[in-house]
Amino acid sequence: MSGNTIGTLFTLTSFGESHGPAIGGIVDGCPPGLELSAADLQVDLDRRKPGTSRHVTQRAEADEVEILSGVFEGKTTGTPIGLLIRNTDQRSQDYSKIMDTFRPGHADYTYAQKYGIRDYRGGGRSSARETAVRVAAGAIAKKWLKQQYGVEIRGYLSQLGEIKVPFVGWEALAHEGNAFFAPNVEMLPQLEAYMDQIRSERDSVGAQITVVAERVPVGLGEPIFDRLDADIAHAMMGINAVKGVEIGAGFDSIAQRGSEHCDELTPEGFATNHAGGILGGISSGQDIVVNVAFKPTSSIPQARRSINQAGEAIMMQTTGRHDPCVGIRATPIVEAMLALVLMDHALRHRGQNADVHSNTPRL
Amino acid sequence: MSGNTIGTLFTLTSFGESHGPAIGGIVDGCPPGLELSAADLQVDLDRRKPGTSRHVTQRAEADEVEILSGVFEGKTTGTPIGLLIRNTDQRSQDYSKIMDTFRPGHADYTYAQKYGIRDYRGGGRSSARETAVRVAAGAIAKKWLKQQYGVEIRGYLSQLGEIKVPFVGWEALAHEGNAFFAPNVEMLPQLEAYMDQIRSERDSVGAQITVVAERVPVGLGEPIFDRLDADIAHAMMGINAVKGVEIGAGFDSIAQRGSEHCDELTPEGFATNHAGGILGGISSGQDIVVNVAFKPTSSIPQARRSINQAGEAIMMQTTGRHDPCVGIRATPIVEAMLALVLMDHALRHRGQNADVHSNTPRL
Amino acid sequence: MSGNTIGTLFTLTSFGESHGPAIGGIVDGCPPGLELSAADLQVDLDRRKPGTSRHVTQRAEADEVEILSGVFEGKTTGTPIGLLIRNTDQRSQDYSKIMDTFRPGHADYTYAQKYGIRDYRGGGRSSARETAVRVAAGAIAKKWLKQQYGVEIRGYLSQLGEIKVPFVGWEALAHEGNAFFAPNVEMLPQLEAYMDQIRSERDSVGAQITVVAERVPVGLGEPIFDRLDADIAHAMMGINAVKGVEIGAGFDSIAQRGSEHCDELTPEGFATNHAGGILGGISSGQDIVVNVAFKPTSSIPQARRSINQAGEAIMMQTTGRHDPCVGIRATPIVEAMLALVLMDHALRHRGQNADVHSNTPRL
Amino acid sequence: MSGNTIGTLFTLTSFGESHGPAIGGIVDGCPPGLELSAADLQVDLDRRKPGTSRHVTQRAEADEVEILSGVFEGKTTGTPIGLLIRNTDQRSQDYSKIMDTFRPGHADYTYAQKYGIRDYRGGGRSSARETAVRVAAGAIAKKWLKQQYGVEIRGYLSQLGEIKVPFVGWEALAHEGNAFFAPNVEMLPQLEAYMDQIRSERDSVGAQITVVAERVPVGLGEPIFDRLDADIAHAMMGINAVKGVEIGAGFDSIAQRGSEHCDELTPEGFATNHAGGILGGISSGQDIVVNVAFKPTSSIPQARRSINQAGEAIMMQTTGRHDPCVGIRATPIVEAMLALVLMDHALRHRGQNADVHSNTPRL
Repeated sequence: MSGNTIGTLFTLTSFGESHGPAIGGIVDGCPPGLELSAADLQVDLDRRKPGTSRHVTQRAEADEVEILSGVFEGKTTGTPIGLLIRNTDQRSQDYSKIMDTFRPGHADYTYAQKYGIRDYRGGGRSSARETAVRVAAGAIAKKWLKQQYGVEIRGYLSQLGEIKVPFVGWEALAHEGNAFFAPNVEMLPQLEAYMDQIRSERDSVGAQITVVAERVPVGLGEPIFDRLDADIAHAMMGINAVKGVEIGAGFDSIAQRGSEHCDELTPEGFATNHAGGILGGISSGQDIVVNVAFKPTSSIPQARRSINQAGEAIMMQTTGRHDPCVGIRATPIVEAMLALVLMDHALRHRGQNADVHSNTPRL
Repeated sequence: MSGNTIGTLFTLTSFGESHGPAIGGIVDGCPPGLELSAADLQVDLDRRKPGTSRHVTQRAEADEVEILSGVFEGKTTGTPIGLLIRNTDQRSQDYSKIMDTFRPGHADYTYAQKYGIRDYRGGGRSSARETAVRVAAGAIAKKWLKQQYGVEIRGYLSQLGEIKVPFVGWEALAHEGNAFFAPNVEMLPQLEAYMDQIRSERDSVGAQITVVAERVPVGLGEPIFDRLDADIAHAMMGINAVKGVEIGAGFDSIAQRGSEHCDELTPEGFATNHAGGILGGISSGQDIVVNVAFKPTSSIPQARRSINQAGEAIMMQTTGRHDPCVGIRATPIVEAMLALVLMDHALRHRGQNADVHSNTPRL
Repeated sequence: MSGNTIGTLFTLTSFGESHGPAIGGIVDGCPPGLELSAADLQVDLDRRKPGTSRHVTQRAEADEVEILSGVFEGKTTGTPIGLLIRNTDQRSQDYSKIMDTFRPGHADYTYAQKYGIRDYRGGGRSSARETAVRVAAGAIAKKWLKQQYGVEIRGYLSQLGEIKVPFVGWEALAHEGNAFFAPNVEMLPQLEAYMDQIRSERDSVGAQITVVAERVPVGLGEPIFDRLDADIAHAMMGINAVKGVEIGAGFDSIAQRGSEHCDELTPEGFATNHAGGILGGISSGQDIVVNVAFKPTSSIPQARRSINQAGEAIMMQTTGRHDPCVGIRATPIVEAMLALVLMDHALRHRGQNADVHSNTPRL
Repeated sequence: MSGNTIGTLFTLTSFGESHGPAIGGIVDGCPPGLELSAADLQVDLDRRKPGTSRHVTQRAEADEVEILSGVFEGKTTGTPIGLLIRNTDQRSQDYSKIMDTFRPGHADYTYAQKYGIRDYRGGGRSSARETAVRVAAGAIAKKWLKQQYGVEIRGYLSQLGEIKVPFVGWEALAHEGNAFFAPNVEMLPQLEAYMDQIRSERDSVGAQITVVAERVPVGLGEPIFDRLDADIAHAMMGINAVKGVEIGAGFDSIAQRGSEHCDELTPEGFATNHAGGILGGISSGQDIVVNVAFKPTSSIPQARRSINQAGEAIMMQTTGRHDPCVGIRATPIVEAMLALVLMDHALRHRGQNADVHSNTPRL
């Protein structure tokens, strides 16, 4: 299947480059009858939008989405939903001097080798700008999952560089001026200072986003290969700059004993949730908990060694507008990808098992 | 697409339960003309086989694979390759007492909820026994990748419980009695003692496997969603007991600075490999390096709380034959999954880009 | 996706050559809880089996199917169903003299060109022997569709060479000695005589099979590309020797007027069924009616011009065991393909639309 | 996979309704380096465009396509190509009176039953307007196939109602005023008169389009299920109003003898082409010849029986702008669908078999 499509029954196919006329996508397989308008998508688009604080890129994109099809009289019709976001602040001129060079840490070199041609303006297709499409599509999935099952999908910044950000409460994310998606208001001054320091060092830093899905129905996931956790890993690792994905205890489970890791069952529910809500690739009804590691932004205002298209050594220094930590704006993207996967599996599950009635009580 | 199929052009579809008559699979899309016999597959099957040391399950399975189709006069014909492995040591009687209970940490509960019915013998479809099919299929991919591009895919145990196992050299893996796939002969006594200790505590422990693919051609991977790293993450997270996947620096990149993480390019090649051989979802020509976290075995000989099908509280104690660390035998599985993904992407790449000639020198 | 897989949620992946050790397949996505045994599949396998009359090939194959997985205690579990049919009457020696020649009308030449290698024994993968796997898999779909919705799928021979066979009644198909699947007992002597004549002329002839699915639920089909009729056409044209597919009035609709073709709706139902049960790619609830054209058998005992692998002119004369009309045994295959498509679409439909309640009365 | 996507490596995903703001699609998997501009697509769009003669609908659509991505500096980059066609002549008011009725022969009833909701304006998603997207995408495939292999794909009207239109020559299609795509200039007056007659009878009629692909490389097609002919049948039957598909001799092969149908091979090439260029599901290098049957337009200006949403009997009479023969404008659509299939299979073929060198001479 096409590399720019994700999902089996509920699918998103995406197009668009950073500095082309538009980005967009097609959401196919959405159940009919869901109330939907562009405003529903705009909420998350605005959460992802650049320029919202001094810690992110100052590129000025309206990120206004237009729904071109699949919605009639305010409701989805079951036909494909066309999404269009015009690029408005392309500033192509900024990129002319990098057209025959490869920015370190970027996909410039690999695109050039794979395709023999590349749109060098702002990273072209490899730009994180494309993630706006995912956020728009994910908002559809979020809305449906919430209406259908009460599913709540929320992410937060759980680590910024060396600084771990303990979870205090979801209400922190609504705190005015919390540009960090930090679940801990007390730490905001520390995070602000840290980012100022990183910027003053003309450097960048990585981050970890944690995303939690609550009230996911038990039974979602398709063994063997399309396990729910496998598809989540695919979706998350498919986000720009992601280098690692964990479910539940993740890498900590390496050093755990079975007697500790393995969640006991009781008539009142699971005693713990080291599994992160997935057993044997199938949702258990517990919260699904995923950690995602973002690498530091590759574009930093320091001279770095690279090569040009002729293979000659050069020095490069980024001067454009870039997030010093790509992870900061990543929370809505991570939520969207989780929503896309869960909705696809919800439809797949009822396709095969719509009439299954388990006689085991749900925990 | 079917949940038991992996790949787009080069695919594996798998079937079989732990205690049914057989497991097997169909490998489709293999290029014609590859010399292939069951012996080629048996090498890796024997590396994965149970019963090879006292640290793994003593289940006695011959794991002999039969090639049923797709090979003629010693060569692949381009048609599907049918693979069959008969189960020979099922001992169904061992499992009768767990038929109406849910083993903690296993997929028993989620299968029962999803399907309303489950083959309770040895975990049925959710048993790691199924991974033998992947190892057999992966051996085909390994052979083709090696012949076509010189690709070498090798994994090792990089952590056992709390014990990190530094990489000394590949030759350690060939050391007689190295049942651990440890890349460090000096540490074998320590690992042996550690596992004896775990067993004496009637417990289990997790592990980390690292897998490296050398000489992978530049250009493999399909942005946006089917990135090479995304498909690797999907394949690895789809292995039983896996809870985390990292590419290159992985979770360490969270605390790295961009100036450190971001690999510089020089005319002689990349200066470092924090990216783990993948940039923008496309292979860079550097070694692909993947870490995979395995949770501790869920089946331990201790009484644990659980419930039965009626939802009543019970205590369960595993008495069957189980690996105290599932990660120990996982190296051939991890290698196989990486091989399947790389081969699929090699075919996809040349499907789209067979006539691309990049005029940039390869690093 | 792999070329040897059909379906999206309910899939069949097939393997095997005419003269290899076995043929078989994997059925994935079957809902759990369906009572199933090998005997259920054997009924249709026996209807397709060679050697049942003097008008078909005398190859003696038991065609006994073994279910290797996915069924537990007599019921499907929702996991993949492995199917195995051993080849027992291969007689490879018959084929040695054709190993470097291309039989006219067969796939020998195209396989050789595509793959550069081919299993020349009995046509290898291109042999109609492979259709036994489809018949076995189709029997699963038939059973589920019947239990779930009361769907009845039945085919018959509607034309043999120049002879049109008018439909008299389904009971004719149960008539002893009706090796033709003819829906008209009175015509059996004529058909017998016709085939004897064809054989005496050392020739072969084509046939048309009509297949009807009754009580198909309204609403199956996925516009735009995966229309129900499009997927039926794909499935039917994928049968060996098929050269044409029609839905409803088919090619007759070319010369029809809209006032004739276009089925009026009344509160009591559709007034006619020129559409063949499908409107806009979606089932209408009327009978689905499909005609399938089979070409005459390519292997005939006459000297025919061909070339060998060196490109030199030769004369070839078939001496093996062949059906003088491949269409005669094709009815169970056509039924099976229709069942596979309908079941896949039934699952896809409820995946997306499980909670749709149309307030329009069903016709 | 999504029902609105066609293809495996080279894919088109389509969106849009007749009276929504726009229709469009995403073409994924196009090889990089192909020179491409909107003008390349406009040629075929203009051939399909309504309003070009008095024999087709007078809806006034500019059908101007915008390329939103995937092309940089005049060449494809290998990334998805976003296509957008704004609807400009929607006239929604025409359709208000049919909002709660079902037009006979249309998909109104089946959409309403499947989804419980439908965009009743102009047929919504089921309108043939959507085929403009296919024509635009097909033009990309046509261009690539021609440049890569010299493939020429051309269709013509081979039957209009009862009137068979013998093929005289391709140049007839370029004849000014040949709004019929008829390969026979002499017959144009007869066809004109026939259509005038049909219109005066307030009726419609069906048609047959024949499409031929020349210089298709040998070896395209993926047995077993994704045969080239099977995928062509899928693509053609997926066009609005199509009721039948034939390859080569098609339904005529039923009454043929094997000695007649079966194409002999000679060192100079195949002696005949009853196979229509495909043997065993794989292209033979001969011309691929496909016939497609279009039913008469369902919308005719006569009173017809139908029902409304409440299930009550009503009479309906079409008053909108409609083609009296949908087949007349279908030639570019049929060509486009064939091009999409051939290009997908060309990429799939070289994915698996890029390094196959058959030592048999090509015919």
